[in-house]
Amino acid sequence: MQRMIFDEDHDAFRDSCAAFVAKHVTPDLETYVTDKAIPRKFWLAAGAEGFLGLEIPEELGGSDAGDFRFNAVFAEELSKLNAALPSCVAIHTDIAVPYLVDLGTDEQKQRWLPGCASGEILTAIGMTEPGGGSDLAALKTTAVRDGDEWVINGSKTFITNGFSADLVLTAVRTSPEKGAKGITLFGIEANDPGFSRGRKLDKVGNEEADTAELFFENVRLGDDRVIGEVDRGFIYMMERLPQERLTCSVANIAHAKQILLETIQYAKDRHAFKQPIGSLQHNKFLLAELVTKIEVAESYVDQAVLAHSRGELTAIDAAKTKWWSSEVQNDVLDHCVQLYGGYGYMNEYRVARAWRDARVSKIWAGSNEIMKELIGRDLGF
Amino acid sequence: MQRMIFDEDHDAFRDSCAAFVAKHVTPDLETYVTDKAIPRKFWLAAGAEGFLGLEIPEELGGSDAGDFRFNAVFAEELSKLNAALPSCVAIHTDIAVPYLVDLGTDEQKQRWLPGCASGEILTAIGMTEPGGGSDLAALKTTAVRDGDEWVINGSKTFITNGFSADLVLTAVRTSPEKGAKGITLFGIEANDPGFSRGRKLDKVGNEEADTAELFFENVRLGDDRVIGEVDRGFIYMMERLPQERLTCSVANIAHAKQILLETIQYAKDRHAFKQPIGSLQHNKFLLAELVTKIEVAESYVDQAVLAHSRGELTAIDAAKTKWWSSEVQNDVLDHCVQLYGGYGYMNEYRVARAWRDARVSKIWAGSNEIMKELIGRDLGF
Amino acid sequence: MQRMIFDEDHDAFRDSCAAFVAKHVTPDLETYVTDKAIPRKFWLAAGAEGFLGLEIPEELGGSDAGDFRFNAVFAEELSKLNAALPSCVAIHTDIAVPYLVDLGTDEQKQRWLPGCASGEILTAIGMTEPGGGSDLAALKTTAVRDGDEWVINGSKTFITNGFSADLVLTAVRTSPEKGAKGITLFGIEANDPGFSRGRKLDKVGNEEADTAELFFENVRLGDDRVIGEVDRGFIYMMERLPQERLTCSVANIAHAKQILLETIQYAKDRHAFKQPIGSLQHNKFLLAELVTKIEVAESYVDQAVLAHSRGELTAIDAAKTKWWSSEVQNDVLDHCVQLYGGYGYMNEYRVARAWRDARVSKIWAGSNEIMKELIGRDLGF
Amino acid sequence: MQRMIFDEDHDAFRDSCAAFVAKHVTPDLETYVTDKAIPRKFWLAAGAEGFLGLEIPEELGGSDAGDFRFNAVFAEELSKLNAALPSCVAIHTDIAVPYLVDLGTDEQKQRWLPGCASGEILTAIGMTEPGGGSDLAALKTTAVRDGDEWVINGSKTFITNGFSADLVLTAVRTSPEKGAKGITLFGIEANDPGFSRGRKLDKVGNEEADTAELFFENVRLGDDRVIGEVDRGFIYMMERLPQERLTCSVANIAHAKQILLETIQYAKDRHAFKQPIGSLQHNKFLLAELVTKIEVAESYVDQAVLAHSRGELTAIDAAKTKWWSSEVQNDVLDHCVQLYGGYGYMNEYRVARAWRDARVSKIWAGSNEIMKELIGRDLGF
Repeated sequence: MQRMIFDEDHDAFRDSCAAFVAKHVTPDLETYVTDKAIPRKFWLAAGAEGFLGLEIPEELGGSDAGDFRFNAVFAEELSKLNAALPSCVAIHTDIAVPYLVDLGTDEQKQRWLPGCASGEILTAIGMTEPGGGSDLAALKTTAVRDGDEWVINGSKTFITNGFSADLVLTAVRTSPEKGAKGITLFGIEANDPGFSRGRKLDKVGNEEADTAELFFENVRLGDDRVIGEVDRGFIYMMERLPQERLTCSVANIAHAKQILLETIQYAKDRHAFKQPIGSLQHNKFLLAELVTKIEVAESYVDQAVLAHSRGELTAIDAAKTKWWSSEVQNDVLDHCVQLYGGYGYMNEYRVARAWRDARVSKIWAGSNEIMKELIGRDLGF
Repeated sequence: MQRMIFDEDHDAFRDSCAAFVAKHVTPDLETYVTDKAIPRKFWLAAGAEGFLGLEIPEELGGSDAGDFRFNAVFAEELSKLNAALPSCVAIHTDIAVPYLVDLGTDEQKQRWLPGCASGEILTAIGMTEPGGGSDLAALKTTAVRDGDEWVINGSKTFITNGFSADLVLTAVRTSPEKGAKGITLFGIEANDPGFSRGRKLDKVGNEEADTAELFFENVRLGDDRVIGEVDRGFIYMMERLPQERLTCSVANIAHAKQILLETIQYAKDRHAFKQPIGSLQHNKFLLAELVTKIEVAESYVDQAVLAHSRGELTAIDAAKTKWWSSEVQNDVLDHCVQLYGGYGYMNEYRVARAWRDARVSKIWAGSNEIMKELIGRDLGF
Repeated sequence: MQRMIFDEDHDAFRDSCAAFVAKHVTPDLETYVTDKAIPRKFWLAAGAEGFLGLEIPEELGGSDAGDFRFNAVFAEELSKLNAALPSCVAIHTDIAVPYLVDLGTDEQKQRWLPGCASGEILTAIGMTEPGGGSDLAALKTTAVRDGDEWVINGSKTFITNGFSADLVLTAVRTSPEKGAKGITLFGIEANDPGFSRGRKLDKVGNEEADTAELFFENVRLGDDRVIGEVDRGFIYMMERLPQERLTCSVANIAHAKQILLETIQYAKDRHAFKQPIGSLQHNKFLLAELVTKIEVAESYVDQAVLAHSRGELTAIDAAKTKWWSSEVQNDVLDHCVQLYGGYGYMNEYRVARAWRDARVSKIWAGSNEIMKELIGRDLGF
Repeated sequence: MQRMIFDEDHDAFRDSCAAFVAKHVTPDLETYVTDKAIPRKFWLAAGAEGFLGLEIPEELGGSDAGDFRFNAVFAEELSKLNAALPSCVAIHTDIAVPYLVDLGTDEQKQRWLPGCASGEILTAIGMTEPGGGSDLAALKTTAVRDGDEWVINGSKTFITNGFSADLVLTAVRTSPEKGAKGITLFGIEANDPGFSRGRKLDKVGNEEADTAELFFENVRLGDDRVIGEVDRGFIYMMERLPQERLTCSVANIAHAKQILLETIQYAKDRHAFKQPIGSLQHNKFLLAELVTKIEVAESYVDQAVLAHSRGELTAIDAAKTKWWSSEVQNDVLDHCVQLYGGYGYMNEYRVARAWRDARVSKIWAGSNEIMKELIGRDLGF
C-alpha cells in the first residue's frame, strides 16, 4: 500500500541520504566487513553532510529537526545496505545523543555535542553486562564515592560502537541497596584512565559493527561526568528505550524489504524447470505472503513513527513494534534464503549476510521476550 | 496504538451505531441463532435509522456518505456482536447495492434502491456455483436469448442472505464461448417464476446468516433486468470485489478484537494455580502476542480503509488486507478458545461461537489462496 | 512409512472391529448426532462382541488382553467415524474400568465389572469441576464423614458419558487441609439419592458425546463405594492419566489421518482451473506436508503404544504424545477444511464436523499447557 | 522416549565412535574452522579405525557392515561436534562410495575402494551446477565422444569435499537430446588434466567443510572411468538419494538434539530475574516443546533407519524424513539461540555456529521444496 507518512521534505531528504550513501558508503562497503568496523571516514562524511545532528540543537552543530520521520528516512536508506550501519548510526544519533541533549549540563553539551554532530566524537551506550542480559535492574558495575570523585569498576558487553567510541554513556550502580532506583549514567571517555576495551566480538552477523566488551578498572570521574541526576539512570533509560526500539523497527523492516525486493527480482531472473522460479505456484504464493507481511508490518511501524513524531508513542507500542518487526524481518529473510537455494548459503550473496545480520534483532534492544513481558504487564497481568 | 483514521463525525456515527445495536439487535440476538435468520425487523429498523443507505443517493432514500469510514464504523459495531451480522449487512449495503448505484438504469434505481435503503428490499449476490468455488470464469448458469427475453437456468450456492433476499444480483453466462468475458449480471427478484431456493445451509458457524442455495429453472427476464452491459459482468465483479474484501477485513479484525478483549477480562477473572490465569507467564506472553497481532493488522486495515475513502485502494491491496486479516482473526480466536479451556468448547460461550464463525473468512470473498494468486501475479509471476 | 507395531493378531482384531463398525455403528451414525447421544444399543453390541472388556479379567466377562495394541486398534477404527466415539469408549474401557480392575475390592469388581464388559453398566470419570479446569489439586467437591457414611456435595462438569453413565468414578475432597493428598475416589451410581445430572452440554463439536454436568447433593455412601484407599485419589489419577492421554493420542492421529485420506481423494476428484485441485502446486506441497506430519506423529504415537504394551510408557512421554498429536490433528484438519473450500464449512461434509470435533483435543485430558508444564518440570525446571 | 532401534553391537560401536572422536577430533576442532578444512589426518585416523569402510567389502579394506544403523551411529556421534563433519563423512562413506561398490567394475573397485577405506582417497560427488540447483535434468556439463575417449567440459558448484577430494563422481550429460536419460557418471581424479577447482566457498556456516567449485576443461577420460552404464546416471542417482537423505536426517536431528541438551543445561545455569532462565514459564514451555519436537522427529528418523537396514526405505519416506528433520533442526536451533540471548549471537558459542550450520539442511540433498514435489507426486498429483 502507498505509504502516506512522508511529505516532500522527507522525500527530498531521502534523496540526499541516497546520494550520500552512493558517494560515501557503497564504494567501501566490502572493506567494512573485512575490517570489522565502520571507518571514522564514514562518520566524518555523515557529519559533514548533517546526518548525525538531527537531534542536536543548531547552535551546537546540529539541525534539531524535531521530526522523527527524518531519522526514519536515514535509517531506511542505510538499511538498504545492511543491518549493521543503521544500528551503529542509531546508537549514536538516536540513542546516545538524545541523553546528552535532554539531560546534559551546558558544559557537557558544549564538550560533546559539536563533536557528535561532526562525527569527531562517536558515542556508544553501555547497558548490558556479562551474564546480565535483559535484566537491567541487576547491574553489577559500580561507582563508589571517594572524596569528590566516583570510582567505577565493572564491565559491559555487546556494546555497539564499543571498540571505536570516544564517549560511552554507561549505566552504573551508585546505590547498591536500591535496585533499579540506584543506577546512574556516566559519560566515560575513551581516554579516561582505567577504561579499556576487549577485542571486537566475533558475531554471527553484523560484522561491520565493532561490537566490543568494555572494562572499567578504578575509573575515577568527577560529578561533571554524571548525566542527569544520580540514581535516576534507570528512569532515563526507560524513557529513551522507545525511541531505540522504534529505530530498530524501522531498520528491521527496511532491511528485510530491500532484500525481499532483490529476491523477487532473482525469482524472475533465475529459471528452473523451464520457468522463472517465482512462477512456480509455491514460490508465487510464498512471495505474495512475504510482500504482505512486510507491508503490514511497515504500515504499523509507519504509524508508530508518526505517533513518535507527534510525541505520542508509548513504551508499550514501541515494544509491540520492535518484537513484531524483528519476527517479520527474520521470517521473511529465512524464506528469501530458501528462494536463492544454495546461493542463499554463500556469503557473497547479500541475502546470506542479511539473514545472519537479522538474527540479533530478536535479541537486542530488549529481547522479544522482554517486549512481551512489558506488553503483558500493560494488559494488567 | 491510537487509531488515527476517524474524526468526530465518525465517532458520533459510531455512537449512533452502538445505540442502534443496543436497542434493536442485542435483545434479540439469541433468536437469530435459533431461527437461523436475521429477521426483517432488523433490516427495517436499520433502514429507518439510515444505516442501509450509506452508498445510496439521497434522492433515493440514502445518505450517499461518500466516505467508506462510515461503512467501516458500522461494520465494526456489528462485528462486536458476531461475525454473521456484519457479513449479511455488508452483502446488502457494501456489495450488492453499489452495483445498482453504479450500473443501474434510472428505472432500476427507482425500482430497487429506495427499498434497499429502507430495508424493504434485501439483496444478495449470486456468484458461487456448486462445484465452482473460486473459479469464477467457469460459471455454468446460463442465460439464453429467446426473442426479447433471456431464459436463465442453473444454480448458485453459499449465497449469504440467499434465503430471504428479495433481489439477487446474479452472475450468468451469456456467451458460452467467451469465458470470463461472457458473463452478465441480472437482477432476479424473489417472485420471478422459475426462481426457487433450497434449504438454509447447515454451516459450521455464522448460524444467524441464512445462507442458501438458489435455483433458476427457465427464469425469463427482459433486458430491464440486465445490470450494466451484457457480457461485462466479470469486469464489474472484479471492480467491486476490493470493497467486499475490505469490508470483510474490517469485520474480521473487529470481531477478533472484541473477543480478545473479552478473553483478556476472562483471564483476569478466572483463577487457577492461585492466580489469574492471565498472569501465568505463558498466557501473559500469549496475550501480548495476540494484542500485537490485532493491532498490527488493524493498523493495516485502517490504512486500507483510508485509501478506499480516497478512492485509491487497489485490488491487490484489498487482497492483502483480506487474507491477512482472516488469518489473524482465526489465529487469535483459536488461542482465545484455548484460554477459556473447556468453556471455550461450549456454545454458550461467545468465544466458542466466534471461533466457529471465523473459519469461513479464510474461504469466502475469494479464498485466501486466490488472494495470493492475485498478489503473486501483480508481482510479475 | 510402513507401520511395524502390529502383528497378525492385531490385524485380525482390526478386521473384527471394522466388521462390527460396519454392522452396528455406521448405519445409525447420523442419529447419534441428532440425539446427541451414543445409544445403549451400541454399548450392548460392543459388549456382546467383546470390545469393552480388553482390560477386564476373563472371569468377570472380559478378555484381559494385556496388550494395549488391541485397545489402540479399536480406537483407530472408531476414529475413522468421528472423534466422539473413540473418546466415549475410551473413557469407559481404557480409563474408568482400569481403576476398578486395579483398585476395586472383590465385591466392587463383582458388582460392576461384568456389566462394564457387557455394556450394561456404562462408566464415566468425574474429575473436572466448574471453574476448576486443569487444576486438579483445587477440587471443591467434598465428602464429609457422618457416622459410617460419607456425605458428598459438589458438582462436576465436562463429564464425557456423563448423561448416560450408570457409574461415575468421582474425585472428591476428603481431607480439606491436605491439598492434592486429600482426594478420594468414589464409585457413585446413577440411582444414588442426591445424584443428578444437568442438561447435555451444547458443545462446539463431538455432538454425539453426551457430555454433562453432574450434581451431588448430600449423596450418602458407605465405605464400599470408596475406590482404593481414602486420600490416595490424586496418585491413582496420576498413575492412570498416561493411558488416557495415550488413547487420546491414538485417536487424534487416526481421526485426522482418515479425514486427510478423504481430502486427498477429494483433491483428485474436484477440478478447478482445469485440473484436479490437488495438482495445483500450492495444494500439492500442502498435502505432502500434511501427509508427512501425520506419518511422523503416527510413528511417535506407535512407539508410545509399543512402550505402553511393554509397561514402560512414562507419564512424560504420554504428555508429549498427547499435546503433539492434538496439535497435528488440529493443524491438519484446518488445512483439510480449506482444501474443501466452501464445502468445508458445511456440516454435511465430514471434514467440517471433524474440524469442530478436533478442537477439544488440545483442551481435554489435561490441556496442552498442562502437558508442557509436566514436561518442563521433568527437564528440571 | 527410549529409543529401541539399537542393540548391544550398536552401543559398543557408539562407544568406539565416541572414543575416536575424543582422541582424534575434539582436540583439533577449532583448527578445522580456521583452516576451513577437515585435515587429511582426520580421514586417515578414521580409516585406520575402520569408520570409513562400513559399506566397503572386507576384501577391499572395509567391514561391509550391511546394517545402516552403524552408519547412523557414526553420523550421530559426529553430529555432536558440528554439522560439517557428518556431512563430509557421509558424502564419502554413505554417498560416493556406494556408487563404486554397487556399480564399479572390478578394476575400478581395486583402484579406488582400498584408498576410500583407508582415507587415502577422499571422494566427492558432483551433481549441482552453477545456476542449476535442484533441477538435475537440466545438467550442462557435457562429455563428447572423441575416438575412444570422452571429452568433458563444464563446471559444478557447492561440492562438499570438493577442494580436497581425490576422486569426484561426476554427473555429466552424454546424450544432449535425452534429458534425464542422457546423463552418465564419471570418476574424475584430482590429477586428471583439465580438472581444476575454484576457491573454497565462503559459506554462512559449516566452515569446516571445504565446499568448492569444480571446473572441467577438456578433461579426457577413457571408458574405464564411466561408473555403471552410459546414460543411466540419473537412475543411479535417484536410487542412491534416499540413503543420502536419510543420513542427512540422522545428522539433522542428532545435531539439534545435542545443542538442545546443552541449551537446557545453560537454562539451568544462567540466572535472570532471580531464577534459572529455564524456570521462567515461557522458557519452560518452550523447552518442553523443543524436546518433544526432537523426540518425535527422532522417532520417525529411527523408523526410517530401521526400514533402511531392512532394505525397505522408499524414496518417498526418505524425502519425508529429510524435509521434516531439517525443519525441526532449524526451528529448534533458532529457539536455542534465543535462549542464549546475546551470547547466542557470538560465534564462540556453539549454539551460534550450530544455527548457522543448520541452515543449509533445508537446501541441500534436494531442497525441501523438491522433497514436497516428490511426495506430492507420490500422492497422485
